[in-house]
Amino acid sequence: MTKHLVILQPSGRRGLVEEGTSLRAAARELGVEIESICAENATCGKCMVLVEEGRFEKYNIHSKREHLSPVSADETAYFARRPKLLKDRGWEVGQLRLSCQACVLGDVLINVPEESRGNKQIVRKSATQREIEIHPSIRKYYVEMEPPSLAQPFADWERLALGIERAMSLVRRGEEHLPRAADLTIDYTVLRTLAHTLREGEWKVTVTVWQDKEVVRVQPGYQEDSFGAAVDIGSTTIALYLCDLRTGEVLAAESEMNPQIVYGEDVMSRIQYSIEHGDGLEKMHKSIIGTLNKLIRQAVRHCEEFASGKSTTRNDITTDDIFEMVLVGNTTMHHLLLNLPPTHLGRAPYVPTIHKAVDLKARELGLNINAAGNIHVLPTIASFIGADTSAVIIAEEPHKQDENWLIIDVGTNAELVLGNRQRLVCTSTPTGPALEGAHIEYGMRAAPGAIERVEIDEVTLEPRYKVIGAEGWNTGDVKGICGSAIIDAVAEMFRVRILDGRGRFRKGLQTERVRESENGQEYVIAWARETSIGRDIVLTLKDIRQIQLAKAALFVAARTLLRQMNLERPDKLILAGGFGSYIDKTKAMLIGLIPDLPLEDVYAVGNAAGDGARIALLNLQKRREAAEVARSVQRFELPTDPEFQNQFMLTLNFPHMTEPFTHVAHLIPHHQVDPMAEKLLKK
Amino acid sequence: MTKHLVILQPSGRRGLVEEGTSLRAAARELGVEIESICAENATCGKCMVLVEEGRFEKYNIHSKREHLSPVSADETAYFARRPKLLKDRGWEVGQLRLSCQACVLGDVLINVPEESRGNKQIVRKSATQREIEIHPSIRKYYVEMEPPSLAQPFADWERLALGIERAMSLVRRGEEHLPRAADLTIDYTVLRTLAHTLREGEWKVTVTVWQDKEVVRVQPGYQEDSFGAAVDIGSTTIALYLCDLRTGEVLAAESEMNPQIVYGEDVMSRIQYSIEHGDGLEKMHKSIIGTLNKLIRQAVRHCEEFASGKSTTRNDITTDDIFEMVLVGNTTMHHLLLNLPPTHLGRAPYVPTIHKAVDLKARELGLNINAAGNIHVLPTIASFIGADTSAVIIAEEPHKQDENWLIIDVGTNAELVLGNRQRLVCTSTPTGPALEGAHIEYGMRAAPGAIERVEIDEVTLEPRYKVIGAEGWNTGDVKGICGSAIIDAVAEMFRVRILDGRGRFRKGLQTERVRESENGQEYVIAWARETSIGRDIVLTLKDIRQIQLAKAALFVAARTLLRQMNLERPDKLILAGGFGSYIDKTKAMLIGLIPDLPLEDVYAVGNAAGDGARIALLNLQKRREAAEVARSVQRFELPTDPEFQNQFMLTLNFPHMTEPFTHVAHLIPHHQVDPMAEKLLKK
Repeated sequence: MTKHLVILQPSGRRGLVEEGTSLRAAARELGVEIESICAENATCGKCMVLVEEGRFEKYNIHSKREHLSPVSADETAYFARRPKLLKDRGWEVGQLRLSCQACVLGDVLINVPEESRGNKQIVRKSATQREIEIHPSIRKYYVEMEPPSLAQPFADWERLALGIERAMSLVRRGEEHLPRAADLTIDYTVLRTLAHTLREGEWKVTVTVWQDKEVVRVQPGYQEDSFGAAVDIGSTTIALYLCDLRTGEVLAAESEMNPQIVYGEDVMSRIQYSIEHGDGLEKMHKSIIGTLNKLIRQAVRHCEEFASGKSTTRNDITTDDIFEMVLVGNTTMHHLLLNLPPTHLGRAPYVPTIHKAVDLKARELGLNINAAGNIHVLPTIASFIGADTSAVIIAEEPHKQDENWLIIDVGTNAELVLGNRQRLVCTSTPTGPALEGAHIEYGMRAAPGAIERVEIDEVTLEPRYKVIGAEGWNTGDVKGICGSAIIDAVAEMFRVRILDGRGRFRKGLQTERVRESENGQEYVIAWARETSIGRDIVLTLKDIRQIQLAKAALFVAARTLLRQMNLERPDKLILAGGFGSYIDKTKAMLIGLIPDLPLEDVYAVGNAAGDGARIALLNLQKRREAAEVARSVQRFELPTDPEFQNQFMLTLNFPHMTEPFTHVAHLIPHHQVDPMAEKLLKK
Repeated sequence: MTKHLVILQPSGRRGLVEEGTSLRAAARELGVEIESICAENATCGKCMVLVEEGRFEKYNIHSKREHLSPVSADETAYFARRPKLLKDRGWEVGQLRLSCQACVLGDVLINVPEESRGNKQIVRKSATQREIEIHPSIRKYYVEMEPPSLAQPFADWERLALGIERAMSLVRRGEEHLPRAADLTIDYTVLRTLAHTLREGEWKVTVTVWQDKEVVRVQPGYQEDSFGAAVDIGSTTIALYLCDLRTGEVLAAESEMNPQIVYGEDVMSRIQYSIEHGDGLEKMHKSIIGTLNKLIRQAVRHCEEFASGKSTTRNDITTDDIFEMVLVGNTTMHHLLLNLPPTHLGRAPYVPTIHKAVDLKARELGLNINAAGNIHVLPTIASFIGADTSAVIIAEEPHKQDENWLIIDVGTNAELVLGNRQRLVCTSTPTGPALEGAHIEYGMRAAPGAIERVEIDEVTLEPRYKVIGAEGWNTGDVKGICGSAIIDAVAEMFRVRILDGRGRFRKGLQTERVRESENGQEYVIAWARETSIGRDIVLTLKDIRQIQLAKAALFVAARTLLRQMNLERPDKLILAGGFGSYIDKTKAMLIGLIPDLPLEDVYAVGNAAGDGARIALLNLQKRREAAEVARSVQRFELPTDPEFQNQFMLTLNFPHMTEPFTHVAHLIPHHQVDPMAEKLLKK
């Protein structure tokens, strides 16, 4: 058989293919996937490619349009229906071809434009740049069937299943283990309207198939939209991302307070509430489902505004168009979401009801996406290391690194993961709400009016501050102080020696900013006249203790993991969660809140749990990865013996009095290692 | 390794097994399954066997109790808890052994009692005696787990799944493809209470697994009951059988009128009702679900009465103890049950929504068995050949015969299946309600007061009759005439020449029984004074026409299939449905209602559809068989051309005037073949 050279740009892939092979099939042979959804019927146009013409010395090829089969009637019809397609780009018929139609008759050089490429990817910013292939759990197929007749009167489902088998094998030619018609199933709610839909579409329908096995939607005619939602359920905040499953694009991002907060601020108090109230679990479960349904409605409504100018998709989405939802959250949120009693999460030996990922029909949970849609909840790792940590891991991929990475996801609780491709270890520790600005005298969330930065002059001990929503220093409508500024203030007070290494106010300071109040000593950051609340905004000794407790907890947790891995320090530090994005890394290192590392090795990656949920929504392989990692990561409980308690007390100090903090040492010339403390901690 | 001879009674299986092998393992090696549900923990006692002692010349063996390992402490404990077990049977410890505990140390002769044998069977009466292995879709396993600890804190589900894997591999040692823990799933409703149940049972539970893949129940402690229901949904009557899934025993049989009868008497009128009324489908669906739930409740309630004296099972069953339900019915009943629009069942080209068997959670349909239980609906074959025919086929097994069998399932519609192991063909035909006693002037169901037999003296033309609920002839509280007596009466009127071959009353008959009324001619079977309704009970010319139409329909349908198979007549005729059991075969053959065969080749098998449902409930393999047969059986539509109409008219005659009815010819010496009719029909 005659063979011809085919070269594909921009990948540069090349090879000899048999004469008569379609360009799409040729590309597949050469390892380049080209999209197609119409089963190569020349109707979807997803597989368009550009034919380059001329003599290409570099490639040793003479490519001509006649080296391909003539433009078919179907192709002509396709382009005739879209006159703007060619005109806008200044292209002629014959230059742009449908690769499912054009067959190789001679050597050709082909350009596969971005939009025609299969295996699309989204790029995620992280400690390393990373690409995520788009390969969601649902795929669409356009299916044309022969109508039933007295000669061929077999049933609607059997007719459709055969059509799907045919469409799949065309669209995904060459792939192994494609399902057979007999192995396909159909969701009961879809079966109920199947007879009507097939006839409404005159036996031409678009079918949505879940995980290559279950038909979850049948729509008349040709349809291509595909939507899903990723959700991160925090103890305090719930964030939902509505995504286009074809492009990975986020069409709307919505968030709400977690309504369970009325039953308890932290997970322990919610567990307690479910134990003490017969209907406690039911109430908390219903409240979260209610809020999720509200977020779904909002996302669908806001989709148009959000996407305008950004997206080329249809925006008339309904909740019924959403077919997959991936949720993550800590193990207590996971249990309350699934209506599982959290009793034993809070009781030794602290075991969840289930580790492995849960797949569930939306209608079983009462979530208002399509009733046949699937709810996927990522695996939990332990009672206090939840599906959110699984999500963080697949987003950051420490299990694919040669270096040792330490990931800290800070909220009211902190989860820590350390390791590399050989081994991952993890633990969790309560850090208290101080790092989020709660339980601090003038603490507030990072919202307009919150002080977000504080600096203190080391001579005058006078502060200057920046307020969210205001430009410049010491200006704005001050209402309180948020997490990042609290850390700034504590670090600066230590640096300028208002506080000593144990976090105590030094005596005899020459400033009116430090004073004694009925609540003990405090430092005034803003006078009442500068604020809109009419009161001095201060940081109290009690506030400082909260920060000390949080940083000691983080230090001990990190040290526990580092010891397990026989490491002095990690190669990189990844700070996940909003917290990491807002704090000043230098200041946090100064007070020992984060380990002492070169600053360029510390990365703040934002809501990695939410990103992980979105990644699991867009890529099925990453769910399998999450399952594997969740199974293999080793958990360590923090010790609780009295000697450990003593060590913990020592780590309350700034930084810890145990080691020269090399990377920020120039800021604290006064810092000295306490040899006794060092000895105690090395035990 | 030393080997010893093991002989198993009553099967007589024998062979050499390695010293130290347990008796249960030895039996498995020799092809004899012994029950066990406790994972060989010496707690369930299912595996008890009797040790025969002495010198057995016939077997060339000297068997002693010492040829087995000593009675273990666990065995002693088991028997100590059940002192009556040995005493009642006059047995001693050591004679009765738990085969999971006793190991072979020398040659032994063992008796495996009926109740210890695995692969239990039920025997079904049919055209041939047949045994059905009991191998239902659900199996129970007793699982003991280590409680979680701080050292082993993994989650409840993962702990249980590992325990199930272990229990399965013990109980079913040697079987291939046993599921791994990671492949098991758990129903969401069961997951929700898992944490509580495991602790309530102190980490000792009985697990119910569906089709070796999904956990559908977890019960604290050791439990062995297992129940299911088989249902035959007829257009007129619904019958439900509550079964013990361990023994196959029917614990209760319940029936009710199909409540959809208020929406239309036959399937066509119900299809029409659903088309004409927006809520028609919903109404009919809800009514059938309501009646099924009523039948389930009744069965559970009546279980105790029904089973008393018959069964050794617990009788305190609740609807929550039922975990599997198999339903059959014609295709319209199938669609209405599943809430699928039947519109296209009644419209050319007559296609159902689905052929293949449907598995569905009970809660999806609102059926009040356990919410995690499964509903299995057998496959449909065509618009007018439903899941009931699939059930009849797996009950009668024509596809396993060398002979050609013709199965006729008669109701308002008749379904006919013809063939053998090489090929099966089928068709259906409306027969009208006459054969069930409906639409007949004095017709009634087979109930007390109904005339069920009629004979007519060929000289005096006087009848005698038998009434249901009365002994002897011409006595009883007469109210009407049921199907079997209508056929008797028509056949007798033909035999004694009151009617001619075309079904017309002969002229000039010397009897007051034949008379002219305002409805035309009629024959008086019982005078008003003999009845409790105070009116003469007559058979009218119109009634006779109904029977003629029904028998013509059956004849044509049978002939269509026989021609497809190139047969003159079948080797055996199987009459399914209540009809077949009540009619007099000779009389039916006399008027050509059933083909002319030696009478001993005609079998009446009762409700074969109900039996098939029960078989599919008890044996998973038979469901696969149903799927295969439903796919392979060839359907034929009855012709509708004008020439066919002419032929149909000829077949209205008694018997058909076309062939000498050899097997009942002695009863009708006056019968003559009409050469012209024969010629026409042979076309």
